[in-house]
Amino acid sequence: MDRKRIIIIGGSAAGPKAAAKARRLDEHADIILLQKGADLSMASCGYPYYVGGTFDDRNQLICTATGVVRDSKYYLNAKSIDARTSTEVTAIDRAKKTVAFKKLDNGETGSLPYDKLIIATGAVPRMPPIPGIDLKGISTLQSMSDADFLRGVRDQRSVKKAVVVGGGLIGIETAEALHEAGIEVTIVEMLPQILTFLDWEMAKLVENHARSKGANVIVNNGVAEFLGKDGHITGVKLKNGTELECELAVVSIGVIPNVKLAKDAGLTIGALGGIEVDNHMRTSDKDIYAVGDCVEIQHRLTGKKVLAPYGDLANLEGRVAGENVIMGDVATFPGTVQSGICKVFEYSAGATGLSEGNALKNGFTDVITAVNASPDKPGFMGGKVVVTKLVANKKTGKILGAQVVGPGNVAKQVAQWALAIQGGLTVDDMVNADLPYAPPFSLAIDHAIAAAHIMQNKIKDRMKGISVVDVKKKLDAGEKPFILDARGPDEFEAMRLGIGETLIPLGALRKRLNELPADKNQEIICFCKISLRGYEAALVLEGNGWKNVRVMEGGIMAWPYPREK
Amino acid sequence: MDRKRIIIIGGSAAGPKAAAKARRLDEHADIILLQKGADLSMASCGYPYYVGGTFDDRNQLICTATGVVRDSKYYLNAKSIDARTSTEVTAIDRAKKTVAFKKLDNGETGSLPYDKLIIATGAVPRMPPIPGIDLKGISTLQSMSDADFLRGVRDQRSVKKAVVVGGGLIGIETAEALHEAGIEVTIVEMLPQILTFLDWEMAKLVENHARSKGANVIVNNGVAEFLGKDGHITGVKLKNGTELECELAVVSIGVIPNVKLAKDAGLTIGALGGIEVDNHMRTSDKDIYAVGDCVEIQHRLTGKKVLAPYGDLANLEGRVAGENVIMGDVATFPGTVQSGICKVFEYSAGATGLSEGNALKNGFTDVITAVNASPDKPGFMGGKVVVTKLVANKKTGKILGAQVVGPGNVAKQVAQWALAIQGGLTVDDMVNADLPYAPPFSLAIDHAIAAAHIMQNKIKDRMKGISVVDVKKKLDAGEKPFILDARGPDEFEAMRLGIGETLIPLGALRKRLNELPADKNQEIICFCKISLRGYEAALVLEGNGWKNVRVMEGGIMAWPYPREK
Repeated sequence: MDRKRIIIIGGSAAGPKAAAKARRLDEHADIILLQKGADLSMASCGYPYYVGGTFDDRNQLICTATGVVRDSKYYLNAKSIDARTSTEVTAIDRAKKTVAFKKLDNGETGSLPYDKLIIATGAVPRMPPIPGIDLKGISTLQSMSDADFLRGVRDQRSVKKAVVVGGGLIGIETAEALHEAGIEVTIVEMLPQILTFLDWEMAKLVENHARSKGANVIVNNGVAEFLGKDGHITGVKLKNGTELECELAVVSIGVIPNVKLAKDAGLTIGALGGIEVDNHMRTSDKDIYAVGDCVEIQHRLTGKKVLAPYGDLANLEGRVAGENVIMGDVATFPGTVQSGICKVFEYSAGATGLSEGNALKNGFTDVITAVNASPDKPGFMGGKVVVTKLVANKKTGKILGAQVVGPGNVAKQVAQWALAIQGGLTVDDMVNADLPYAPPFSLAIDHAIAAAHIMQNKIKDRMKGISVVDVKKKLDAGEKPFILDARGPDEFEAMRLGIGETLIPLGALRKRLNELPADKNQEIICFCKISLRGYEAALVLEGNGWKNVRVMEGGIMAWPYPREK
Repeated sequence: MDRKRIIIIGGSAAGPKAAAKARRLDEHADIILLQKGADLSMASCGYPYYVGGTFDDRNQLICTATGVVRDSKYYLNAKSIDARTSTEVTAIDRAKKTVAFKKLDNGETGSLPYDKLIIATGAVPRMPPIPGIDLKGISTLQSMSDADFLRGVRDQRSVKKAVVVGGGLIGIETAEALHEAGIEVTIVEMLPQILTFLDWEMAKLVENHARSKGANVIVNNGVAEFLGKDGHITGVKLKNGTELECELAVVSIGVIPNVKLAKDAGLTIGALGGIEVDNHMRTSDKDIYAVGDCVEIQHRLTGKKVLAPYGDLANLEGRVAGENVIMGDVATFPGTVQSGICKVFEYSAGATGLSEGNALKNGFTDVITAVNASPDKPGFMGGKVVVTKLVANKKTGKILGAQVVGPGNVAKQVAQWALAIQGGLTVDDMVNADLPYAPPFSLAIDHAIAAAHIMQNKIKDRMKGISVVDVKKKLDAGEKPFILDARGPDEFEAMRLGIGETLIPLGALRKRLNELPADKNQEIICFCKISLRGYEAALVLEGNGWKNVRVMEGGIMAWPYPREK
């Protein structure tokens, strides 16, 4: 019998998954996995939680659900996969169909033939080319050794202040981990906001929360230089000249696809720097596949290639390639809608599909947004607020994206929208969605459905919304709209914006219309805590002849600026 | 100006929602809501949690998120809706377009004209026509007064033992509430299982859990008689003669649409006893709509009419009717996929779409099922098990239904499947779904995606599954398949089925093939804790020539029968 020879380069997520899938489809193939590092199949997304002390047993990052460490022996015995660690592939010879390797522990070199090759070489952290970058005490959080180092920092309690460079997913998770470890943390982000998968005003809500939990967040400012003494970091100097003391800096400004092997072998590299693959995860060489953080995949909404270095996609891509190397190109990978989520102290922040900014940047037209702020379940069940910004096409009603932040159940909301998008659902579909309801789990009208209701009202022009950002712009420009807060006096006493608003509770509005501007054309902006009463107030005014009434979407819960109270 | 006169009969969920939506679309319509009971807009799904003591303030059941009680004054002031409580509608005169009413407090009668009428008369609890049904201490949990009565029972600590008649959603929630109140509870269900939206073996997992928490569950047995003394219940006598002592019985064997008014007015009543409506929620009279528990709606998968008395659907239906009475029939309601969920002690149990049983009963062919048991998130993040039974069409791959039970995050899983079904997604679509992943929220390969992987493997005939039910049947029939437990020795020591299985850990299997049956045609059934290793074991055996190997789906986690250990 002719045994297929499958070689997989890379042993983190996509590689092992591809190897396992290939094995399941062919008990007799020769499957060799070559891993440069010492560990295999690391739960790298778990690093921040190990660093932060959510759990203490390092082995949990590299063991199966039943506690068996996924080492070479495990792969050999349980999966009959020859997984060689500390083994670097130095070259791919496509003509001879071999890979050259070098054992990092003893210097041994050799070459292995393949029938099919899978490249899963991952990505490497992007490092800023600035002075001091080689100082001790500057780390990333990308590898087991990074995790070991930072966990050591936690356990030794040797660091008082740390700077996290970069406010993306990993940066935020790392900042929280260090904060949990008792370290005073500053996040420095060059862009105007953290978490760029969110639109600015949504990211701002998260940023405000992080600050309220004691993390310092600096945006619109990059690191110009790492400062040091005796070879060890003592601080960072920002582009605006500010100096921050710290004994630790973690750099998390993104990753670069690790494509050297592929490039040297002459495989096609995409415009974004990732290996180009077709929807079978096959490279420009018919016998070579590539999966995980080193490839470019298709965005399912824009049709464009994107880098999507996420552990979940790596697994799915690995499964597709593992199937195809054994069965021929039968499995396809449809690409990504870029669903993502992270925990940020007591908030979660997630998104799927396109943000408003991304939709516009990608040339989408007729883009309309709607904001919903409401609890995730009834107050009597301890519901917590979530704020959703929904993005849709005004003409077709097609849902393009959703961003969700807040202390409530964000993950479920984002997952719902992710599947709504993947099912091609429209706003009208979501308006009458049938979701599982009981008070311990959701509102009778689920937060997502309510968001669709708001969007439908906007599309049908029944609700004229205005974003918190546009309200602020008007105020900053000196405009003087009549601003109506439709809440009750107690609520007003406890919390208020202080932007010149007039308090008229919704329940008194119809009797107090004389307090509204006499000019029926004057602009009026209504809101309440979440802008449901604000919406009803706007309808009362429109019903009584005012012609220029708008609802500030999401109300106070979506207001990302400082407030009076 | 000609003001539209809208009358709504019923003030629980669907009625107030319809009234509110109508108001939002027409500030000047005359909107009158007539409610027989004393309260308005009750969060009736919250009754069990008030009874059980999750919260203590009764007002939370009838107040807005900001604490304002939704009484007549609230409706008048905030929504300009004339909501009259204790007002019973006694007849509808379709020719004259009036409703006759009677004030229950003072006996006043009168009649009101309508342009459009919305019937939201709800449902009444089904009561068994058996001796003793009128004894004191027999209640339902359908109204505020029921909730008050049962909460009083809790607060007075006067009841030691209670029987809940009926093991549906409300019965189970009520049983938990009474248990939380310190009462010894027995659930009596006439059918072979509780929670009939689940297939038997899934319901059994929930039943086992309820028992483990101290609730007594009796299935396959109905109540023949309520026993009493001095007019008060002292026990129930079951159909098999068993007598159970109790001072309280709560009957929850379903509800009957309350259609008397509609029927008397000559409106068409459907075969299931609910008011017939079209997809605009309009009855057989063009000026009368009906919404909520009193109507029949369409099942989106079977196309058949169903009764779906759920609070979430009532709200959506109410919104549709409220829109249509003002705007003409512009809004449509697409029907239900019967998504539902309930909390059962530390488990949740939910479903969407069709169970296997329901699919077969409704004439679906090519029905295939797959079971997945896995944690909802990584072990190091405190993941808890969920068990999913997925139902699909083998030929088209279309997802027909999903049932999910367990201590883990069931609600999110069911919500995901609900939207997958509503988007018409197939198993192949779900195999590569892009869901928001981070360790605090899910596995890298989400439980739902893994369920789709298993289903795909079954559809492609790569995994030959067998249900726990079919394994048990074989054993009960005296068949002697070779049963292989692929777990480790420690796991075997800690927990095992004891059904004649042989323990060969997956990691040792390839070296111990000589311990397998010499006859390559003998039936072999593999499993492990969740049957992932069981699946891999089966593939090893098939790869080595055994021809009749099956995987017991869901493994020990899905085994609903007693086990040795």
